[in-house]
Amino acid sequence: MATSTKSNPGNFFEDFKPGETLIHATPQTVTEGDIALYRALTGNRYAQYSSAEFAKAAGLPGLCVDPLHAFHIVFGKTVPDISLNAVANLGYADGRILRPVEPGDTLRASSEVIGVKENSNGKTGVVWVRTKGVNQRGEEVITYVRWVMINKRDAASPAPEEIVPSLPSAVAPADLTGFPEMKSWPFAQSGSRHVFEDYEVGEKINHVDGMTVEEAEHQIATRLYQNTAKVHFDAHGQKASRFGKRLIYGGVVISIARSLAFNGLENAGQILAINAGTHVNPLFAGDTIYAWSEVLTKAELSETCGALRLRLVAVKDADPGAFIYKDEAGKHDPRVLLDFDYWAAIPRAR
Amino acid sequence: MATSTKSNPGNFFEDFKPGETLIHATPQTVTEGDIALYRALTGNRYAQYSSAEFAKAAGLPGLCVDPLHAFHIVFGKTVPDISLNAVANLGYADGRILRPVEPGDTLRASSEVIGVKENSNGKTGVVWVRTKGVNQRGEEVITYVRWVMINKRDAASPAPEEIVPSLPSAVAPADLTGFPEMKSWPFAQSGSRHVFEDYEVGEKINHVDGMTVEEAEHQIATRLYQNTAKVHFDAHGQKASRFGKRLIYGGVVISIARSLAFNGLENAGQILAINAGTHVNPLFAGDTIYAWSEVLTKAELSETCGALRLRLVAVKDADPGAFIYKDEAGKHDPRVLLDFDYWAAIPRAR
Amino acid sequence: MATSTKSNPGNFFEDFKPGETLIHATPQTVTEGDIALYRALTGNRYAQYSSAEFAKAAGLPGLCVDPLHAFHIVFGKTVPDISLNAVANLGYADGRILRPVEPGDTLRASSEVIGVKENSNGKTGVVWVRTKGVNQRGEEVITYVRWVMINKRDAASPAPEEIVPSLPSAVAPADLTGFPEMKSWPFAQSGSRHVFEDYEVGEKINHVDGMTVEEAEHQIATRLYQNTAKVHFDAHGQKASRFGKRLIYGGVVISIARSLAFNGLENAGQILAINAGTHVNPLFAGDTIYAWSEVLTKAELSETCGALRLRLVAVKDADPGAFIYKDEAGKHDPRVLLDFDYWAAIPRAR
Repeated sequence: MATSTKSNPGNFFEDFKPGETLIHATPQTVTEGDIALYRALTGNRYAQYSSAEFAKAAGLPGLCVDPLHAFHIVFGKTVPDISLNAVANLGYADGRILRPVEPGDTLRASSEVIGVKENSNGKTGVVWVRTKGVNQRGEEVITYVRWVMINKRDAASPAPEEIVPSLPSAVAPADLTGFPEMKSWPFAQSGSRHVFEDYEVGEKINHVDGMTVEEAEHQIATRLYQNTAKVHFDAHGQKASRFGKRLIYGGVVISIARSLAFNGLENAGQILAINAGTHVNPLFAGDTIYAWSEVLTKAELSETCGALRLRLVAVKDADPGAFIYKDEAGKHDPRVLLDFDYWAAIPRAR
Repeated sequence: MATSTKSNPGNFFEDFKPGETLIHATPQTVTEGDIALYRALTGNRYAQYSSAEFAKAAGLPGLCVDPLHAFHIVFGKTVPDISLNAVANLGYADGRILRPVEPGDTLRASSEVIGVKENSNGKTGVVWVRTKGVNQRGEEVITYVRWVMINKRDAASPAPEEIVPSLPSAVAPADLTGFPEMKSWPFAQSGSRHVFEDYEVGEKINHVDGMTVEEAEHQIATRLYQNTAKVHFDAHGQKASRFGKRLIYGGVVISIARSLAFNGLENAGQILAINAGTHVNPLFAGDTIYAWSEVLTKAELSETCGALRLRLVAVKDADPGAFIYKDEAGKHDPRVLLDFDYWAAIPRAR
Repeated sequence: MATSTKSNPGNFFEDFKPGETLIHATPQTVTEGDIALYRALTGNRYAQYSSAEFAKAAGLPGLCVDPLHAFHIVFGKTVPDISLNAVANLGYADGRILRPVEPGDTLRASSEVIGVKENSNGKTGVVWVRTKGVNQRGEEVITYVRWVMINKRDAASPAPEEIVPSLPSAVAPADLTGFPEMKSWPFAQSGSRHVFEDYEVGEKINHVDGMTVEEAEHQIATRLYQNTAKVHFDAHGQKASRFGKRLIYGGVVISIARSLAFNGLENAGQILAINAGTHVNPLFAGDTIYAWSEVLTKAELSETCGALRLRLVAVKDADPGAFIYKDEAGKHDPRVLLDFDYWAAIPRAR
């Protein structure tokens, strides 16, 4: 009896055809158990994602899944089809949080191939996909574009027609949706009195606290999202890799940095859009994450709600108050882990 | 004031009387929180245990507890009464999954002593128990036979009358119950199109991926099931033991190996019966689990549902594609962790 | 653009004004997910906090949050306001468990400053606060007094008028509330037949089992309660500290010791009051916790329910059967981690 060929070998560069849509396994029902675990793994303290009563006062339907959590769940589903043979995760763009995800909702994910470009070495290529997460009613809850460098199955395969999608550098304020009425915000319980008007463009915030990540923690988090990329789990296999050990899923860094950002951005807990994100350097177990933020721009969305466009920078084993970022040539400092650009809703002054 | 004698010293070989039933503490209500944790600790991705909508389409009442998870809960309850003074867990047989366990159900466990046999050394004996897990309505949800080698309290105690139960080498197909109607299986979301008819007897499947287990992970999982066997938790006490360190609960190996088996057995997510199981070698924190499967036999259960009898082999720090198993003398390779024989339901071709 | 001053610098000794009340962020809705995690992180097996059916039979409204779990949640909220600049956590007193916390309840916390006393060194002072945890209906669920040594912002600040609150050495039996009718206690499922009358004053119970704590475990637990004290999380920052590494939150020790105490106190699962607590020595990852208890006094609360006043002593890497405690001078043995004094309800003989 021959060996089975039923295991998934993943897709290679040649397999991605612009215009085609991949439907990803496995749909996942998100529960209060997921929310408790997300808090326990990241330190999430934003009041509207911690308290059902605060959530209602903040314009949400009740205790909901943090949008970053929803992002990780949708992202996790795409791994077996998109990035099993990826060399590098190159970037995100045009990420939009469209609807709250409530306990009991089931998330499914699909990705449309929107661009392909073979690299000059003939061995790899870049693939752009637009991924959508929908709930059990078929309503879109999140969408984003991601591009990855993927190995070719066969270097001799002809290069496909090059299609490079045009992507916005940031979601335009007019395209921000899903922000709530914020007129009855319970400031006494949120941890801060700071509102939209208190933040200035260019302001840099030192989030002070640090969080060290253990192997068990990132593995538990990454499995929570059903992300199965082997580099995060297989210590034995990783011995032969470039770093010789497990790499921590970049989403773990995003969520921990964002949780640290509570200290200074207490009322900006609701992410509306992900403009861009770069995993500058890998994080390994035992490293400590610190974070700082910069206010890039501001936008008034309604009478009660504004939006801050924020750069969130995570650094490794270094003082976040030093605001370490890039050198004069525009190259990221080697201590930078993450450079993340997003919009968050925040109540306006009354 | 003398010291209390209220702590549980566990049962010794002499305490097990054939025909007697032990009622185990502590009943446990299983919730969506348990399901989220089980996923996060094992990497479970079988669609019918991940999505409430998929579960309903797959003939289950909704999001349910994975049968292996229910097995670990029931098993965990038996430890203080059955195996506190055990020398070795020798085997399982005739395990049957009788009913789905839904969030909110409360599981209780009891064990009937069905066999005893003193060993020739006069210091230990083998005890066979049939364990049953019932829900809050008193319905049986799982039953299995387990046998363990247990220390005698006193080597001078006379040997009991030998009773060795007759056990089936596997649950007969006609005895498989609890399999659902599978006619509207959502293949697009399950991760694979492979059905009952696609698997051949003798086929070996390399599940490819590996998962490294940390001390924190197995401890959290084992406590989730309320299994308190001290060898899993007490690093200080284990220094004086044979291995000098904590042993990982064998159920952790079963569940992780079974989760890895998703890659190649995507539609065979529902376990119907446990035929046999041997923990061939111990797993320690830092080791990486890989798994492969072999199709032992097949059985048609209904127009829409078939069953695969599968051997699941977990190996440690070794290529699962090498299908490492036994030598010519029939002895397991030292890299084998687990040799597990079970039936799983799978949809038939339409 | 100057750096933001929006991060929380914490309060210093001068900031605490007797009579003032601090409202703490972040309100937290507690769910079945929290309960599952608490069990998985501590090993909690008390039947009334494990089974919804047992809970109802034991006089609770259903599956509830363990009172220690509720305590940690309320305590965690106070950290950013009370102990961010603390030198030491000095003690607890007059802790009362007033109402069950059910899944879906939202806990909020506030603290009234009830005492201040500058130390003779002029650099630090002691602050006493009475903390209250209330649910979403504004009902008090827990209250306790805690005192901490806190740094002065400026050693030159004048000393405040000294106010030292008068605190009971223990909650009087007449002040114990929240104990249930216990007449239909399901002894067969609780793990023990021992009732109120079986315990004698002065009786010492060896809880036998040990539990080793990993970095990931205490971090996950401490984040579950939204306690953000940096000493528990920031390995990089802690390198420059006295111990050179992360300290484990004392509440982790309390909960694990209390879970180990199941073995010998199976029917005394419901804590009614916290009389006192001292974290004698720090716990670090890799250490193993053992525990023993002493019955200090007893009180009849009703026809069906009694209360045991218990001393729970946690020791590190040492035999709990040696009942290690204090030397002749009344100084705690260096192996003692925790000296905890509380009241627990237990059914009376029928």
